[in-house]
Amino acid sequence: MTTAKRDTYTPETLLSVAVQVFNERGYDGTSMEHLSKAAGISKSSIYHHVAGKEELLRRAVSRALDGLFAVLEEPGAVRGRAVERVEYVTRRTVEVLVGELPYVTLLLRVRGNTRTERWALERRREFDHQVADLLKAAAADGDLRADVDIRLATRLLFGMVNSLVEWYRPHPGTGPDQLADAVVHMALDGLRTVR
Amino acid sequence: MTTAKRDTYTPETLLSVAVQVFNERGYDGTSMEHLSKAAGISKSSIYHHVAGKEELLRRAVSRALDGLFAVLEEPGAVRGRAVERVEYVTRRTVEVLVGELPYVTLLLRVRGNTRTERWALERRREFDHQVADLLKAAAADGDLRADVDIRLATRLLFGMVNSLVEWYRPHPGTGPDQLADAVVHMALDGLRTVR
Repeated sequence: MTTAKRDTYTPETLLSVAVQVFNERGYDGTSMEHLSKAAGISKSSIYHHVAGKEELLRRAVSRALDGLFAVLEEPGAVRGRAVERVEYVTRRTVEVLVGELPYVTLLLRVRGNTRTERWALERRREFDHQVADLLKAAAADGDLRADVDIRLATRLLFGMVNSLVEWYRPHPGTGPDQLADAVVHMALDGLRTVR
Repeated sequence: MTTAKRDTYTPETLLSVAVQVFNERGYDGTSMEHLSKAAGISKSSIYHHVAGKEELLRRAVSRALDGLFAVLEEPGAVRGRAVERVEYVTRRTVEVLVGELPYVTLLLRVRGNTRTERWALERRREFDHQVADLLKAAAADGDLRADVDIRLATRLLFGMVNSLVEWYRPHPGTGPDQLADAVVHMALDGLRTVR
């Protein structure tokens, strides 16, 4: 717009600006020009850091995906009864969503128009698939009700968890812990006190 | 594109074409030109039916909102114990979502850039508010667990229900009834068999 400021960005800080712009305008609707204006540096300075906007997208969604997949490797996700691992993964997924809110928001809005987007969708499906397998194991143990289809239950669970990116804003009294508790209480134990 | 076909549309059938285009391209990204091409009739034929695309949007989201608000007037939503009314409204909301899938999809994607969109968002909030009041009443009866904040529970419930528009496609074995059962089982009774 006016004179560009000196480029003091690191790949990390540039990424955080890019993610914000992607989330506001949509990835498709964002040009290098928009990124340059938002960052306050020239396009050539951006090209000094990255090959283009698709690289920024790849880095951003990788950050979200790495956070989510890391959960599946944690001790609480691999040891113990399947239903407890479902609870653990649900809780930690909520924490990753909240901790990496702009990155996960971007991941969940990816449409599939570019190679990077299709790769991200593929990885998301893989994550969902692994969680569905956990739910299946818990159902096989008799720890999950038999009258709900597991694929459906997995989708509803992710529907609930993923909706957080649309409405959750950090707030005293509703931190990641309270949020994770509420999701687990609702999905696993239900809201109803009397059966 | 080529010669336009004879206009055999009714306001109703034109609306269903428009909703499909709005959902594919986004409301902002849809021009009268796009609508004219999709319907295969001239723009002036469209103007014969409606004043413009905002009128089509208003009619489309009204159809979704009317369906949702009608639920709140049904006997099952106004009589009986609050927790049973919560269950009833949840179930019927799922049915309306499935029955009016493209219309509710459009409603849930509305952003707030035009007067009609802001009105639609306002009506959605009003609906959410009325359901939250029902949940509050059920909690006051002691029928909902006290350790989950009701605002949070309402948002999670809608997060789960509204996610249907993103992934649900009619399918033998997963009709509206099975879907509604799954949502109610999960949200109210939880997936876990053992406490």
